[in-house]
Amino acid sequence: MKIAILPGDGIGPEIVEQAVKVLKVLGESFEMEFAPVGGAGYEAAGHPLPEATLKLAQDADAVLFGAVGDWKYDSLDRPLRPEQAILGLRKNLNLFANLRPAILYPELAGASTLKPEVVSGLDILIIRELTGDIYFGQPRGVRECPDGPFKGQREGFDTMRYAEGEIRRIAHVAFQAARKRDKRLTSVDKANVLETFQFWKDIMIDVHKEYPDVALDHMYVDNAAMQLVRAPKKFDVMVTGNMFGDILSDAAAMLTGSIGMLPSASLDANNKGLYEPSHGSAPDIAGKGIANPLATILSAAMMLRYSLGKAEQADRIETAVKNVLTQGLRTPDIFAEGCTKIGTSAMGDAVVKALS
Amino acid sequence: MKIAILPGDGIGPEIVEQAVKVLKVLGESFEMEFAPVGGAGYEAAGHPLPEATLKLAQDADAVLFGAVGDWKYDSLDRPLRPEQAILGLRKNLNLFANLRPAILYPELAGASTLKPEVVSGLDILIIRELTGDIYFGQPRGVRECPDGPFKGQREGFDTMRYAEGEIRRIAHVAFQAARKRDKRLTSVDKANVLETFQFWKDIMIDVHKEYPDVALDHMYVDNAAMQLVRAPKKFDVMVTGNMFGDILSDAAAMLTGSIGMLPSASLDANNKGLYEPSHGSAPDIAGKGIANPLATILSAAMMLRYSLGKAEQADRIETAVKNVLTQGLRTPDIFAEGCTKIGTSAMGDAVVKALS
Ligand SMILES: CC(C)[C@H](C(=O)O)[C@@H](O)C(=O)O
Ligand SMILES: CC(C)[C@H](C(=O)O)[C@@H](O)C(=O)O
Repeated sequence: MKIAILPGDGIGPEIVEQAVKVLKVLGESFEMEFAPVGGAGYEAAGHPLPEATLKLAQDADAVLFGAVGDWKYDSLDRPLRPEQAILGLRKNLNLFANLRPAILYPELAGASTLKPEVVSGLDILIIRELTGDIYFGQPRGVRECPDGPFKGQREGFDTMRYAEGEIRRIAHVAFQAARKRDKRLTSVDKANVLETFQFWKDIMIDVHKEYPDVALDHMYVDNAAMQLVRAPKKFDVMVTGNMFGDILSDAAAMLTGSIGMLPSASLDANNKGLYEPSHGSAPDIAGKGIANPLATILSAAMMLRYSLGKAEQADRIETAVKNVLTQGLRTPDIFAEGCTKIGTSAMGDAVVKALS
Repeated sequence: MKIAILPGDGIGPEIVEQAVKVLKVLGESFEMEFAPVGGAGYEAAGHPLPEATLKLAQDADAVLFGAVGDWKYDSLDRPLRPEQAILGLRKNLNLFANLRPAILYPELAGASTLKPEVVSGLDILIIRELTGDIYFGQPRGVRECPDGPFKGQREGFDTMRYAEGEIRRIAHVAFQAARKRDKRLTSVDKANVLETFQFWKDIMIDVHKEYPDVALDHMYVDNAAMQLVRAPKKFDVMVTGNMFGDILSDAAAMLTGSIGMLPSASLDANNKGLYEPSHGSAPDIAGKGIANPLATILSAAMMLRYSLGKAEQADRIETAVKNVLTQGLRTPDIFAEGCTKIGTSAMGDAVVKALS
């Protein structure tokens, strides 16, 4: 089995290195091939997603991704900026289903800005559609405003859109995920304002007929943002579009106070996927050896489970990570009184040790 | 001076009644005229925003609005549903600037789900553009998907758009508001993905030249949602579009844990405005006499300050509300051990008493 390893920018290389360490001691024979992406892709080949990198990702069985982005690329034209790599990979590989667990390990409850009783034991799964919506909808651009009180001025515009089949396939992913959990699915929309999301809601209701064992409810996105702050533990699985999912999954991650712990998976229709930590490239701490590699290691575990058919190995890694937390080992981002502060590489080593 | 009073549905009438009580004891001669809106408008005249109600709002110097919505109207066609009234008022009255303070009164810090040290003393102002963006952009609807892998299927679609003048005028409102506060403005966008918001950001940077005394920074909406959870007190004034503002202002309100306390103003270019509590119509507790009228009373205070030129009276009301909180008087939504639980009408009376 072949894994494409795309470390990217900022802390990407150092955290991916730890996940690779972990994968290497599992006793499986993975072929791992590295390629530059993001700013590193731009440096190497003049494009954030070099052709060779895309080809490697297409040929591989799974992609392990670090992070992209650095202030030094801020002045590039948008198509050349690092984050275009991640959009390009999603689109080209058809990675339409983004799975973002927001889990709060009991040992880390103190790290949250929310009261422990509100978040301790939090375990929700946000499923974000990833290849449609206003992210990719055409037409878009800057044009002359065609009508209304601002007619003749310049205006920026974009198109939000979801086709029936696009909504159906993410609905199936969501209902199936809910089935494996507490059988409760919340579909987040803005049907009171947007045609796209009235349509989304109608299709969700239709697909629900095939999953009578799952309870479906609908919530407006503004209310969902409020309920995540008020009582996040009430949710089981949430499903929503690309734009709302971007906002809500990040808010949910931050509720845990330990975004350095949260993995993510982006899957296509055949469970091929791209796996990456939920956090960014943190250029401010890059190269200092203090970044938390656990989100990336846990992303590798998700990869084993969803794309490589190695659920047992995934369990082993997740247990090892819990173990390391129980031992009191902490990178600075999750450090608390009474624990042992260690760096990126030592954290990788600790997980390797806990595995054996 | 003429005030249009639109109580609306659910708890709307009972909370508006308290604000009217308060306005009546100020010793000013306001002309107040009532009209039905939302579900009440539909019942009275077959439309959530009856023509006579719109006309009254247009002729008045300010509008005091309760809340709209009730489950019993859920099955109506979208154009007849209660919330269309509020969209119609915004559009017809050109109320493009929505001011949503998120303030946490020290006495109520315990009500928040966030740790007291994270939110106590919170005082941020979110400015949401209210008549543009994907809320009103044309074209929109359900059509045959014109291209791509889902070609020929049905698709829902909407148009996001902002014209230059639209962005400029909300930018001026935001910079001027920041000038009266801590002189820090955060413009929230998604310039890394959306053409509309790259354009938004460019115009913000341009308008900033006229306000060199205000510090401007830019934040992606997903990051803004995270930072509101992580360290909300770092913000002073935030400005953003209609859609992002809908989500972020509700999230910010919920941080306080006391959304029954938060007023809002929606202003046109001449400071004529509509004033309403940030919370909804809460049909589940309507008629029980337990709703918190303070957000509506504080909305009346904003009305005096922004539209009616009576800043001193606004101060008086705000001081009276603080007074009532200091006395330990609480409606059930903000009740805590050691306080005195009172109902809607008693709370209105308490503010009236504190005023004299
Ligand atoms: C970098 C950006 C384009 C991206 C997105 O908006 O999807 C990021 O925020 C994410 O959530 O992966
Ligand atoms: C009721 C709805 C149309 C409205 C909106 O989305 O603007 C509401 O959520 C608000 O924020 O006032």
